[in-house]
Amino acid sequence: MRLSRFFLPVLKDAPSDAQIVSHQLMLRAGMIRQEAAGIYAWLPLGFRVLKKIEQIVREEMDRAGAVELLMPTLQLADLWRESGRYDAYGPEMLRITDRNDRELLYGPTNEDMITEIFRAYVKSYKALPLNLYHIQWKFRDERRPRFGVMRGREFLMKDAYSFDIDEAAARKSYDRMFVAYLRTFKRMGLTAIPMRAETGPIGGDLSHEFIILADTGESAVFCDSRILDLPVPGEDVDYDADQKPVVDDWTRYYAATEDVHDAARFESETPAEFRREARGIEVGQTFYFGEKYSRPMKASVTGPDGKEHFIHGGSYGVGVSRLLGAVIEASHDAGGIIWPDAIAPFGAGVLSLRPGDAAVDAACNTAYEALVKAGKEPLFDDTDERPGGKFATADLIGLPWQIIVGPKGLAEGTVELKRRATGERESLSLESAIAKVAG
Amino acid sequence: MRLSRFFLPVLKDAPSDAQIVSHQLMLRAGMIRQEAAGIYAWLPLGFRVLKKIEQIVREEMDRAGAVELLMPTLQLADLWRESGRYDAYGPEMLRITDRNDRELLYGPTNEDMITEIFRAYVKSYKALPLNLYHIQWKFRDERRPRFGVMRGREFLMKDAYSFDIDEAAARKSYDRMFVAYLRTFKRMGLTAIPMRAETGPIGGDLSHEFIILADTGESAVFCDSRILDLPVPGEDVDYDADQKPVVDDWTRYYAATEDVHDAARFESETPAEFRREARGIEVGQTFYFGEKYSRPMKASVTGPDGKEHFIHGGSYGVGVSRLLGAVIEASHDAGGIIWPDAIAPFGAGVLSLRPGDAAVDAACNTAYEALVKAGKEPLFDDTDERPGGKFATADLIGLPWQIIVGPKGLAEGTVELKRRATGERESLSLESAIAKVAG
Repeated sequence: MRLSRFFLPVLKDAPSDAQIVSHQLMLRAGMIRQEAAGIYAWLPLGFRVLKKIEQIVREEMDRAGAVELLMPTLQLADLWRESGRYDAYGPEMLRITDRNDRELLYGPTNEDMITEIFRAYVKSYKALPLNLYHIQWKFRDERRPRFGVMRGREFLMKDAYSFDIDEAAARKSYDRMFVAYLRTFKRMGLTAIPMRAETGPIGGDLSHEFIILADTGESAVFCDSRILDLPVPGEDVDYDADQKPVVDDWTRYYAATEDVHDAARFESETPAEFRREARGIEVGQTFYFGEKYSRPMKASVTGPDGKEHFIHGGSYGVGVSRLLGAVIEASHDAGGIIWPDAIAPFGAGVLSLRPGDAAVDAACNTAYEALVKAGKEPLFDDTDERPGGKFATADLIGLPWQIIVGPKGLAEGTVELKRRATGERESLSLESAIAKVAG
Repeated sequence: MRLSRFFLPVLKDAPSDAQIVSHQLMLRAGMIRQEAAGIYAWLPLGFRVLKKIEQIVREEMDRAGAVELLMPTLQLADLWRESGRYDAYGPEMLRITDRNDRELLYGPTNEDMITEIFRAYVKSYKALPLNLYHIQWKFRDERRPRFGVMRGREFLMKDAYSFDIDEAAARKSYDRMFVAYLRTFKRMGLTAIPMRAETGPIGGDLSHEFIILADTGESAVFCDSRILDLPVPGEDVDYDADQKPVVDDWTRYYAATEDVHDAARFESETPAEFRREARGIEVGQTFYFGEKYSRPMKASVTGPDGKEHFIHGGSYGVGVSRLLGAVIEASHDAGGIIWPDAIAPFGAGVLSLRPGDAAVDAACNTAYEALVKAGKEPLFDDTDERPGGKFATADLIGLPWQIIVGPKGLAEGTVELKRRATGERESLSLESAIAKVAG
């Protein structure tokens, strides 16, 4: 992408109502624009990152055997009456009446609807296990939306739903999602720590929140630091095999958010040298809720015994839009955002220090074309902005590699290559710089 | 994908309330499920096609220089008051009140919001031309939703918005989108005929509807058949060049929907041998509306003359979810759907006629793995269904190529290869079948 043809409205200063650093940086970097309280437009830069995060989430769900579909944003109120949640959900649910006076709502989650879909088609245990997921916009009418996309009202969530014949099978499905979550966050450069959690309005008796550590996190967390060194299963993870050993590994050390923290237990279970108090941000949550929805909604299958069994369900959420804020909270410096390579909006930048200079133009074009061909999705800053402004923008928006091309260097046969994460700069030939970035 | 792990709830019979063939086939093929009047869940098969169509639309927008962002589904009513459209829009707009009594609406289109975004950031003509688009769910509270996804209430639309300094520049932007539309529909195997159209609630004085011909189309169309032979620009189209010659080519023959049809003009302009009366389905519409939104919303830029100019705008919609229905209306037979290769949910099928037979299993696995590696996204029917059922499903869901593997053929060293579109079958070696499908 040539910057002259892109739409990147960076701001000099962060609007004063942005309280946390991710919100400030997303506004300054021209990633989002608020359209109403807790409702954002994703400007092109933010949209690119959103899509990359979404794609990683999708790939890891698919790898774990979940099947993607897409449920609508609006749902019938009667569906929620059937599961018994309509009145229970409270004012966070956005209730809507259409022109024919039918009661609708903007879905805050989809347990009810997916159960309705399941029961319409699946009649036999032979179709199980089944895990269906979607990545769709949700709405929760927060009383006080704030912190940008971290606590928005309209937000993008991945939610998966597992269906099994009994609790033992459902636990296996739960464990698969648990491992998929470890992999998902790891691929985004994050270490997410699973912590036992309350189940809230989703219900059930087993739940984990996946928390990433960030100095500016929303809540205090207490954990055994040995968790941070545990291995995450690789791409070759075999989801046909039992994942319980991995889950056991990741849950044997103490880890709790402040809501459920038990200081005495923490101290008795965790040697002092491993006790870690930090701040954390929730990026995902898993639930096993058994027959909570299948029983009132009559979602059952015929078992191998010829009898009807209510299915045992679980649900598994990832806050896709929230993750942008979480990643930035965990990875930034005074200059701006430091994207992990896997989710950077552009894989590299090519900064022309003198557009119009024939040698500079030629070198920039060579670098740009080579990086496009290598699949690095480079951003070519071909604008008339002064060099200082270009450097600032490249760091603000977090271009992981920056090839800086000026007439002086070129006269000596070199360009400069900067690594955003470390700030390291080196002078080298154009060819070497391209080779290094193209990897 | 192995069918045993997919979720494909095909139905023997079409529900009796589905009036048109695309709606019937989408239900029978397990592509969609109605969740409320005009509101559908996209089951995995339907979702896959939706994503493929979306991706083609995206690629052609990007190629034409449009930049993708994503606006939220909900908008502030006040924004529409500012443009003057809030009261004008009528009962098709879904009006919503949140917990703080703020008036929102579910966006049926985004001219107002994109103008708000534009004016917040763009101050100089130097940033022009600019074309911003998104692919987002919209809602129109149709009085009588029907025909499945063809006239739904919650639907997926691509809408692009161009911003230019004056009418001459805006016409160039319009022409680029016109050509991008020709390319977009062509890639989906469709010939879309641009026809002069009314502008309706979007406004403006220049508009084209893009209509595809289908025997079951919603409206009668009248056109000069020579349009159908006009060339569509290739991948190497140069959008920096003026596209007016292409637009002139495609608009010089008579073409009109029944709303604006002029029989006398048709007969005088079109020699009898080229007069074609047919049925058509609208799949896209383009608008040039000048200062309709920029003037009330004060979206202006400083021109090269140092003066403020209201920008000249256009908008360009493609009915992404509607296109699934349109394609099926245009391409099906008694056995089911005939997908154009570019948007087929799976590129090929591998049908095992005897799962559990070692030779059949080995041959199927070889074919399946080879087609996965070739990027053909095959569907491997590894279920216990009888052969007749597998053939029917493969045709119903429209697998473009079908490699049929049975013990008898294998004993003679052959498999069967079927081409869905023509029904042709041939016996050949497994390797030849793979090579033919992998292309």
